[in-house]
Amino acid sequence: MPLGSRTDCGDARFCGVEVAFACDIVDTLQRSLLCGFDFVLAPLVHPRFRRGPDYPGAFTRSDLLLTASQWSGQVVGSTSPWINPDAPQDTALRSQSEAALRQELHWAAHLSLQACILPGAGGPNQARILNQALLTLTGMALWVRVRLGGPEDAWEEWNTLRFACAHSTRLGAVLEVGAQLPSEASLARWSGENVKAIVVPTHAFTTNKRGYPVLPKKHQAFLTSMLKLGVQVVLRGAPRHTPPGGDESDAGLKLPSNPLRPYWEYLSFLFRKGEIAAEQQPAELAYRDFLQSPLQPLQDNLESQTYEVFERDATKYNTYEEAVYCALLDRVPAGSEEGTATVVMVVGAGRGPIVAACLAAAQRAKRAVRMYAVEKNPNAIVTLSHRVETEWQGKVTLVPADMREWQASEPADILVSELLGSFGDNELSPECLDGAMRFLKPGGISIPSSYTSFLHPVTTHKLWTDVAAYRDTEHFETPFVVKFHRFHTLAEPQARCLSAVFTFEHPGQQPPDNRRSISLVFKAAPPGTTVCHGLAGYFDAKLYKDVHLSIRPSTLTPKMFSWFPIYFPIKEPFVVSQGSEIRVDMWRCDGNHKVWYEWSVSCGALRGAIHNPNGRSYAVGL
Amino acid sequence: MPLGSRTDCGDARFCGVEVAFACDIVDTLQRSLLCGFDFVLAPLVHPRFRRGPDYPGAFTRSDLLLTASQWSGQVVGSTSPWINPDAPQDTALRSQSEAALRQELHWAAHLSLQACILPGAGGPNQARILNQALLTLTGMALWVRVRLGGPEDAWEEWNTLRFACAHSTRLGAVLEVGAQLPSEASLARWSGENVKAIVVPTHAFTTNKRGYPVLPKKHQAFLTSMLKLGVQVVLRGAPRHTPPGGDESDAGLKLPSNPLRPYWEYLSFLFRKGEIAAEQQPAELAYRDFLQSPLQPLQDNLESQTYEVFERDATKYNTYEEAVYCALLDRVPAGSEEGTATVVMVVGAGRGPIVAACLAAAQRAKRAVRMYAVEKNPNAIVTLSHRVETEWQGKVTLVPADMREWQASEPADILVSELLGSFGDNELSPECLDGAMRFLKPGGISIPSSYTSFLHPVTTHKLWTDVAAYRDTEHFETPFVVKFHRFHTLAEPQARCLSAVFTFEHPGQQPPDNRRSISLVFKAAPPGTTVCHGLAGYFDAKLYKDVHLSIRPSTLTPKMFSWFPIYFPIKEPFVVSQGSEIRVDMWRCDGNHKVWYEWSVSCGALRGAIHNPNGRSYAVGL
Repeated sequence: MPLGSRTDCGDARFCGVEVAFACDIVDTLQRSLLCGFDFVLAPLVHPRFRRGPDYPGAFTRSDLLLTASQWSGQVVGSTSPWINPDAPQDTALRSQSEAALRQELHWAAHLSLQACILPGAGGPNQARILNQALLTLTGMALWVRVRLGGPEDAWEEWNTLRFACAHSTRLGAVLEVGAQLPSEASLARWSGENVKAIVVPTHAFTTNKRGYPVLPKKHQAFLTSMLKLGVQVVLRGAPRHTPPGGDESDAGLKLPSNPLRPYWEYLSFLFRKGEIAAEQQPAELAYRDFLQSPLQPLQDNLESQTYEVFERDATKYNTYEEAVYCALLDRVPAGSEEGTATVVMVVGAGRGPIVAACLAAAQRAKRAVRMYAVEKNPNAIVTLSHRVETEWQGKVTLVPADMREWQASEPADILVSELLGSFGDNELSPECLDGAMRFLKPGGISIPSSYTSFLHPVTTHKLWTDVAAYRDTEHFETPFVVKFHRFHTLAEPQARCLSAVFTFEHPGQQPPDNRRSISLVFKAAPPGTTVCHGLAGYFDAKLYKDVHLSIRPSTLTPKMFSWFPIYFPIKEPFVVSQGSEIRVDMWRCDGNHKVWYEWSVSCGALRGAIHNPNGRSYAVGL
Repeated sequence: MPLGSRTDCGDARFCGVEVAFACDIVDTLQRSLLCGFDFVLAPLVHPRFRRGPDYPGAFTRSDLLLTASQWSGQVVGSTSPWINPDAPQDTALRSQSEAALRQELHWAAHLSLQACILPGAGGPNQARILNQALLTLTGMALWVRVRLGGPEDAWEEWNTLRFACAHSTRLGAVLEVGAQLPSEASLARWSGENVKAIVVPTHAFTTNKRGYPVLPKKHQAFLTSMLKLGVQVVLRGAPRHTPPGGDESDAGLKLPSNPLRPYWEYLSFLFRKGEIAAEQQPAELAYRDFLQSPLQPLQDNLESQTYEVFERDATKYNTYEEAVYCALLDRVPAGSEEGTATVVMVVGAGRGPIVAACLAAAQRAKRAVRMYAVEKNPNAIVTLSHRVETEWQGKVTLVPADMREWQASEPADILVSELLGSFGDNELSPECLDGAMRFLKPGGISIPSSYTSFLHPVTTHKLWTDVAAYRDTEHFETPFVVKFHRFHTLAEPQARCLSAVFTFEHPGQQPPDNRRSISLVFKAAPPGTTVCHGLAGYFDAKLYKDVHLSIRPSTLTPKMFSWFPIYFPIKEPFVVSQGSEIRVDMWRCDGNHKVWYEWSVSCGALRGAIHNPNGRSYAVGL
């Protein structure tokens, strides 16, 4: 199916070819499929056919030429280019255009085509007809052809139509590239948009040394980045390159010769390169742009399989081991009196991965330790009990208790915890550690010792429409954990304030106050106008001295997968002009045994409402 | 996965085996999988282990013995048999039981088990704990073991628990059969219930002539019927049959010998027989127990692929051809004056299958006809135009019009239509044909000449809970087209009134009045008590004289697939005692350009509300 998301179904259909109406559709489809293409893009009606409203006969070819599954799986329709429902001062053409556009769209839906391509975004009258069609022809997508590299900013006309059609997920953009491409920054804006396909004309290809058609470097880079986002490719135009001799790779297959085959070979090569790269992160694929509610490990007990997944993150636990190792060396300088064991407490031990990391650190540092493992989840206690019996005899004291209530029998030198969420403090690490600081010796060490959250405004059509699909306020006021994929970071923070949001230190001030507030100002990066769908959040944690864990793009810890970023949606997406300032206000509030964030985003004439007042939609239970 | 519906995923997992706690779970699971079983049913906690509320250590084996995907995919847990939260006059046991049951259920959820089996339905206190667990442990199903063939009616205890837990879809029954089975009628009641597995003890097997374990005929029939519904099987007990020599079929595979293998072989044989039978209706599988909104062909235009599916129903069009053939012979007796062509009009011609059937009938009857094809869908007109040009030159006059408005140029001898829905008149055949009768000659023939709808009360947990999942009134007041699969017809109509609902004849009375009302009384069939989830509806149409089309079970037209039955839900399921009377009232109403049904169902103390007043939730547009 041309529309199916490639990464979801595993069945790679990525490349179509544009054909003329006049051709024999049955034969052309067959030849295109044999050549390797997955679908054809074909006019619905002969381009020279203009019928009046009362034309009695058949206005196009018969549906019986292909089966229903061929129509829906292998054909994308394009509407007639003469249609112009916004023709100025030509009432007859306007009304004829309206009728013809409706007729063609209804015919396409009758054929169960998965998508129909329009030659351009058009004006307000076409937008009205498309918006009506999106609401009535609910099985079919509408794709709008947008030409890149022209004098106008093509993004603008797409954006006007998209807002007019209320961000419908079935309205997609098909980008047609020319011989010249716009700037990289201009192209980057499309990565957060609902782009369905890239049309590549044969005249955009150059010839390589061996005489085969290839794309220029810039085209190649853009196409590769779009293929990675699941976008499809459509080849258009007559063949212009004649490679020397037969195609070697198919010599044995005796395929019927198709002059478009060298183009398909090249596009297929780009696609396969991307597929091979994607196979290196198989675990990640299923989570791309998928909204997850953040864990509430304080309120809910984690399941066995959740522990199992997190325990596989070797990078994270190696980094913890390194931090504990450094702290042990600092705490007990070499040559100290023997027998003075360092008291190390793991608070929130889970099934014990940090306990194991601490024991490994102690062995490596050649320091004696007295270990305590504190855990509140009775199911994890079952695992820890078995590990104490079988792996850690005499080395670890097991404490089935909530760290906020436990009365420790001796104070700790080093307190180790892994309570961080995607936004640092969002799983209530500050509140839990405040409760545990009672039994840290004065001058003792907390690992982590501090952590900071960060925010960036982003374009992300996919995530915003997924939130909007719930049709309620709650989901717009809930932050979601998500592996951002089809998105674009649209603004850099002002130099002075950066994008840091909230910082917590342990041990911290006494008495503790974990409420926070911040105002950030971002300046939209060039070039051109773009759209903001909300905020992407990250954290950077200092475990000990220069040992950090970070999911912030600029300081990312490589190969760590325990945390995806967090998405703060906003109710109303807004247009951001180049150079305009985006103001973000955020608060961390507490009360009534819960903690929550409130946020608002403003830009120019749009003043954002404060989301999630009183934690009415989302809060983390204490 | 033990829970997955087999027919959905195509991956056949059907058979588990019950094992003891004392065994080595890793080794036992491995041996069971090698023997062919798909999962094991294992106690969560050692049956002799009774802990107090403050027991500090591990209360069961470690979760690390198996991976999370093994726990969730290959193990179903069973709770401890000593647990009795309803123990009379033993407060200590009651409270110890409550704590232990909660602990075991939470442990099972921690392991991400897909299901947990309880030894019995228990009393109201256990029901309360299970109901709470169903609402909090939302990833896990609870299955209750129900013993068939005992002195008590096992269905009763299941039913009480099911109502207490508000018909939760995650509460299932696991039926344990003994050496003796209850009556066939008693067993049949389970086919509409949420049965997840059948436990078959080794002592229920007998030995065949060759010395292999087999089930008695009655067991075999019951198991086959349940396998067909997607129910799984669990083998329990020690091996009691020793077949002579090695198992021939595996001689070459050198499988480790497992004394349960002959039982698995036998169960696997029953399962494969069922799979082979199911493969004969592949198209039907995806629609089993799947709610579809009825078509509104008058208001909406059908899509090309909908026509394509219906046109494949050869039985239906052959029957139409036969009816037209008989009517032509009657209308123009052999030897009539040559040249008097019979005027045949197909009203609602679609893409022309009935037109083709009429032309074939005329050729076979050797009668001259003048054919008109009347169709309102402009997209179907495209197809018809092409067929007139290429197949039917000069034989068919095409009329793009609504039959209710068309001014015919001459009157018809025979008027053929296919406007029937699953409930006969529910796609407004009466209203459409009333409009077309204007151009039928006096004494002319309508095909169909009459049709009647029928209703039966049914048990259908699956459909009712699917409707309830919408959490609104609208869906309870909407009839759905559905291929009934897991259901049980629970009452026979009273002899005098039968189960006929509404009848329409064409030509009918003048002026036409298509409003109807009826009261039906059904007497619950023996044996025992059962539950009613709504009504199943069917139709029987007389095309011409004794040529019928019927989807009514007792007069079913074989091999016809154009219509599935219709399901009228009711808001409140109710218990039906043996011999009690079920009263069904139904109305067909019209007004404001729409037609709708209203219905109510009463039984004993339960007086049903009238569903769908004024067609507020569901109506068919004129």
